[in-house]
Order: sequence, then structure tokens, then C-alpha cells
Amino acid sequence: MASGTGAGPAVVRSVGHVETQHLDLEEPLPLDCGRTLTGVRVAYETYGTLNEARDNVVLVCHALSGDAHAAGEAPAWAVEGTRDGFAAEERDGARGKTLGWWDGMIGPGKAFDTDHFFVVSTNLLGGCKGTTGPSSTDPATGRPYGSDFPVITVADMVRTQRAFLNALGIARLAAVAGGSLGGMQALEWAVTHPDQVDAVIPIASTHALAPQGMAWNAIARESILRDPDWQGGHYHGTGRAPVAGMGVARMVGHVTYLSAPALEGKFGRRLQHGDAVRYTVTEPEFEVESYLRHQADSFVRRFDANTYLYTSRALTYFDLARDHGKGDLARALEAVTARTLLIAFSSDWLYPPTASQQVHDALVANGRSSELHVIDAPYGHDCFLLEEARQTPIIRDFLDTDRLGDKNR
Amino acid sequence: MASGTGAGPAVVRSVGHVETQHLDLEEPLPLDCGRTLTGVRVAYETYGTLNEARDNVVLVCHALSGDAHAAGEAPAWAVEGTRDGFAAEERDGARGKTLGWWDGMIGPGKAFDTDHFFVVSTNLLGGCKGTTGPSSTDPATGRPYGSDFPVITVADMVRTQRAFLNALGIARLAAVAGGSLGGMQALEWAVTHPDQVDAVIPIASTHALAPQGMAWNAIARESILRDPDWQGGHYHGTGRAPVAGMGVARMVGHVTYLSAPALEGKFGRRLQHGDAVRYTVTEPEFEVESYLRHQADSFVRRFDANTYLYTSRALTYFDLARDHGKGDLARALEAVTARTLLIAFSSDWLYPPTASQQVHDALVANGRSSELHVIDAPYGHDCFLLEEARQTPIIRDFLDTDRLGDKNR
Repeated sequence: MASGTGAGPAVVRSVGHVETQHLDLEEPLPLDCGRTLTGVRVAYETYGTLNEARDNVVLVCHALSGDAHAAGEAPAWAVEGTRDGFAAEERDGARGKTLGWWDGMIGPGKAFDTDHFFVVSTNLLGGCKGTTGPSSTDPATGRPYGSDFPVITVADMVRTQRAFLNALGIARLAAVAGGSLGGMQALEWAVTHPDQVDAVIPIASTHALAPQGMAWNAIARESILRDPDWQGGHYHGTGRAPVAGMGVARMVGHVTYLSAPALEGKFGRRLQHGDAVRYTVTEPEFEVESYLRHQADSFVRRFDANTYLYTSRALTYFDLARDHGKGDLARALEAVTARTLLIAFSSDWLYPPTASQQVHDALVANGRSSELHVIDAPYGHDCFLLEEARQTPIIRDFLDTDRLGDKNR
Repeated sequence: MASGTGAGPAVVRSVGHVETQHLDLEEPLPLDCGRTLTGVRVAYETYGTLNEARDNVVLVCHALSGDAHAAGEAPAWAVEGTRDGFAAEERDGARGKTLGWWDGMIGPGKAFDTDHFFVVSTNLLGGCKGTTGPSSTDPATGRPYGSDFPVITVADMVRTQRAFLNALGIARLAAVAGGSLGGMQALEWAVTHPDQVDAVIPIASTHALAPQGMAWNAIARESILRDPDWQGGHYHGTGRAPVAGMGVARMVGHVTYLSAPALEGKFGRRLQHGDAVRYTVTEPEFEVESYLRHQADSFVRRFDANTYLYTSRALTYFDLARDHGKGDLARALEAVTARTLLIAFSSDWLYPPTASQQVHDALVANGRSSELHVIDAPYGHDCFLLEEARQTPIIRDFLDTDRLGDKNR
């Protein structure tokens, strides 16, 4: 991966120690639902250096359970891990430190190369990791919003990012990138702010969730709503939270993030205890059962159930064709001028390659610049977090990082 | 489909009005777990006539949520529908009457032709439709077993069927057939009673559930166990039952029984109310969301949560290779002498065709008679209930029904 200027191979390093910062938006934030949020706070991290032209900014957008801590190391006590699925275990290995959820992708010499780009990551609107969301204090009541928080959309998340970047004095984005729900935000940026985005990189994402994915999300939300400890969404301060329901929601999510062969390879039908079953309906007998329970238990300790509900609803609503094209995807994408790089994974059945193909085809039909790479990899939707090495050259090539080399140093 | 004796085309008729009967086993039933059940009652239905030689008996075995009412019409008040998924809606059409869950497969001129065969269907051990299960009265306490019911296996279900058939004076079976968990019972019969079974027909089934299917079953059970109304399994007589958790369990099951394209074709992303979303996290917005909630609500009215737990556990435990072959499937199947007909469906991702292929390959490697038919059909696991027309000629041909024609009339 030698640069075009003969600078030699890029050195892959970490962005090092980071701390999440916060910024309060001065203006009220109007929302799709018709309501307006005031006093919106945005949690964010940045990596790399903003150049003088202010044209080297890459915005990375996280998925359902992510946060602003996308790269570098934070003290474990400050940020609990937000990697999903198998990736979560990898991060567990970094004792005492918490690596960002896309640390393998963001840093010097990496896919989003902080030697060239100023990478900005925010916690999304409705989140529970520092940005205003259902667990934040409602200025009107002095108590947490709970289910009084307005129902938000992906467009509202982008609107928040736009306002946040204004406050930072950033007008244009060299790129917007993200996986899953993060990729939806990237696509929304391309459609609604075409004059402000040079490139978008939606990974393992879609223009609209397919009915099976909608069903899984509905089941996850039902599981939370049906937990009596949800208490109509006003559980803060009661000493009870819908951890049982959210645990089940998380288990459902987990299995949809992984592929059947990945589960087969990792667990098979191995028993937890010896060679014989213990004849129990209440305790895990198989490793895969124990794994799911463990993942659920660790998730409920670090995540807010209402944020799960609101974010799941937003990604289910997301529908570029309906929202921007009267049902026609090509029409919805007509305004796009950004160069587009789509990456999908062969084993991802939640955000299948066909969805990225549809976006690609519509862009090409519109005469726009689009690249689609389907990576043959076995880990399902989780690939966007795991297959960093194989995404890196594709993204560096697309962003022309090696040619940019000297320009932004 | 004219018979070999020139009798003309088979006429497809219904077995007509049926009523579920009950039989009490006289002997105690020993179980795999080491416990023994006494006073076991078996709910059953029969269709057709037992011939003098008593060699025309076909045992059909039902799946997780089924019952003994496999064919014919029962008054709707007597038996609530037990068809799954899309099939459930078809049956809703028969107002005032409830068709058996395999009515399209059992009857005069049908796949299991009651002009030739005496078809026997029992509710499985652990069930909640007349056969002894967790909601039955524990003779030791006079109260429902609840979670004191012993943990059962597929082998225990077969043991119950064996004892039941003994009471009916039936020594041999011309065939054992069933879909899903019913197919597991058929395979278990072939392995453990090789001298008593002439043929087995496992449909959309497996020798051992794959880890992803194990995960879905674990999630369904967790959802019930985490519902506070489960009350440790002793909810009978409390006026409360874990309907919230079982509803979520049912939703998970539903989605796994259907294929992604089937959901796409049936629901797409159609909204429930007009063209605009209503911005709600608690109410269904999309047709697929409303459908899932409806299916859950109707299921919880007709099914016992503990039966769900026990049956889900039994089908997860089922593992021919581990139980009978020290981990080797061909070895487990060595004892089999029955001719085997395996049917699988291309879109079934819960019990995928590869599982049937593995059984087929192991039987062939053992020099046994096995046929495998993979039917290309879009409805997922539910195909075994829906694709009756395409299974019929395969099964009739395998059972040589037309040649048998006059012999058993």
C-alpha cells in the first residue's frame, strides 16, 4: 500500500487515548414528527487534524447500539464496550481499556486515515451515550423524558449531525461513512445534503429494511414493551428497568447479526457441562445458549431500553424511496451528487447484498458514480465490524488516500 | 394417479367429522431423565380402517404447537386451530369448523390415503391438547405439574406412542411420518424400533437442530422464563399466565417458520394506516408488525407456556448422532431397516435441506433404502403444512398406495 508519492508503506497506529466530548446545540432542533427539541447535547469524538481548508472531514455514523467512541482507547470505566456479536469478545481482551467500535478502521494508515482525514464521530440523537435521548432530562419537567421523548427518524439524526457540524464550523464533508443504521445515515446525508457531501460509504446497509428485518426489530421492541418493568416508558428513578425484555431483544438482535455457519463454527452443538444433558428447561445446556444469556446480561448493563426502542423504530421507518421518491428508489436518489462506495457481505442476511445492489443500480441508472463491493465473508451482518482488513484497501482506494498523502499532512 | 389395478383416479375426500379420543396407559412410563410418569393419558384420533392383518397403520406425529387433530373437521369450540404461520389463516376460513393441521395430507385419495391406511395421530407427551403434560394434574399433589413435570425427550414421546399403540393392539407400523419435530419422532422410531417400522417419512426435519435453530429456541424459552407471570412454572390457578413472554416466543417462532421472500411477498413494507407513519414506538405501523402481534395474541389463547418450554427443550436436545452413535450419524442409523423418504424444502432455513441430505447420505452409506426430495418452494419451514399438493404424489408413490389399492380396502 505504498503511496503514489513514494512515501513508503503506511504505518498502522492507534489514535491513542481519547475522551468523549460534549457540545450543546444553541438552536432548537425541529423533528420530522413535528415536535422540536431544545437544549440538545451531542457527545462526540474526533481523530486526526482539521486542515486549513476544512475539507478533510469524515463523519462516521454508528449502528443501533454504538456510541461516539469509534476509535482509540478510553478507560474501561468511562466507556463500556459497544461492539456487537463476536466483535465484543475481541474487545473484552483489552483489559482496562476500551477500544472504539471501529478502531480497526480509524487511525493512522487505516481505512479512514487520520494522517489525512479529520474523523468525527457522534453519538446519535436518541442515544444513551451522551447525546440527548429518552434518558436525558426533559427541560420541561426536570425529569427524564422516558417515552415522552419524541419519536425520531434517521433524518432527525442527520439534522442533529448537521447542526453539530455547524457549531464546529464545518460546512462540507469529504465523506460520510457507517455500517448498518450508520449507513442509512450516510445515505440520508447524500440525499438531503447533496451539495455538502463529496462521498458516502454505506456499509452493510440498505435503503429500506426488508420485512424480515422489520419483523425482528418489532419482536425486539415487543419484548421490551411487554416487560412490566418498562412501566409505560417511565422507569427511570423507579429502581426497576426492563432488563428482562431488553435481554431478549438483544438475543434476537445478536442472532440476526451473525450467520448460521458462523454459529455452527463457533459453538456447534457443544454442551456446557460434559457429555450428558442435565434435563433442565431453565438453565443453559449448550454453549450457544450460555453465550446468548451472557451477551444479553452484559448488554442490559450498558444500554437504555428506550434508546433501543426509539432507534429500532427509526431504522424500521427509514425508507428512501417512500420518503424522498414517492415509492421510487431511483427518483429518491436523483439529487445525490456524492460519489458512493457500497460495501456488503455475502453472509449478511439482515442487510443482504441485494439491498446494496438496489442502491447501486438506482445510482447508476441516474448516471451517478457508484461502486459496489460484495465481500465474501462468513460472519453475517457483524462483518462490518470484523472484516476490517478487507474493507481497508477498498475504502483507501475509493478515498484516494495514498494520492492525498502529502496534501493534508 | 390411476391405480395399477385400473380402479381409476383416486377421489379426494375429507375424513369428515372427527372427535379426539383419550386412552389411559396402564403401565408407568419410564423416562430418559430417570423419572417415571404414572397415569399417562394420550389424546388421539384415527382415520380409515384397521385391516385384519393390522399391518396398514400409519402414525403421524405433530410439530411443536400441534395436536392430535390432524385431519377432518372438528367443531371449532372443541379444537382451536393449530396450524402455523400462513397456514393458520387458511384454516380460519372454515367458519365454525376446525380442519386438522394436515387435513390436506390425510384422507381418501390423499397422501396418507385412508382408503388404504389406518392413520393414527396422537398429541405428544408433554402436550396441552389432551395428552399428559405440565398442565395435567400431578397425581402426587392433586395440582397441575407445572415445572415439576419431568423434562422429556423425543425418545420419551416415542416411548409414549409405543405404549399407546400396544394398548390398541398394534404391533407394527406401515409408516411413521411427521414434519419438523414430528419428523424427529419418525427418525427416532426408525432407530429405536427398527423391527416394528416398515417405512419412515421425516419431512422438513433433521437429525439434530443446528446452532441457529437452537438459538431461536433458547430465545423463545428465555422470553417465557423471564415473564414474571411464569412464576417459576406454577402459574396454574393464579389467574395469571406468561402470555406476554409466550407471545414474543411465538413471534420468534413465526418468523423462523417463514422465509424472507415469503414475508416480502405477503407484506412488503406496507403501512397499516394510509401512506404516512404515525410516529409511535408502541403501536404497529407496518402490516408485518400487526400480523405478528395478531399471531401472538391468538396463540397464547390456545397454548400452554410450559408445554412450549418442554417441547422446545426436547427438540433442542434431539441429536441422533450423540444419542445413538457416539457422535457419528451413520453409526446412529446403523440399526435402521425401514425404508426412508425424506422431504425438505428449498426455502426452509430452520430445518434446511442440508440436514435431510446428511440423514440421506448416512443411510445410503449404510446400504439402506433412502429417498430424498427437495421441493423448491418459497414458504420456508411452513412448507410442510402448505405444500400438500406437491408432497402428495411423492408420498403416495413411496408408500406404493396405488398398487396397494384393493388389498386393504
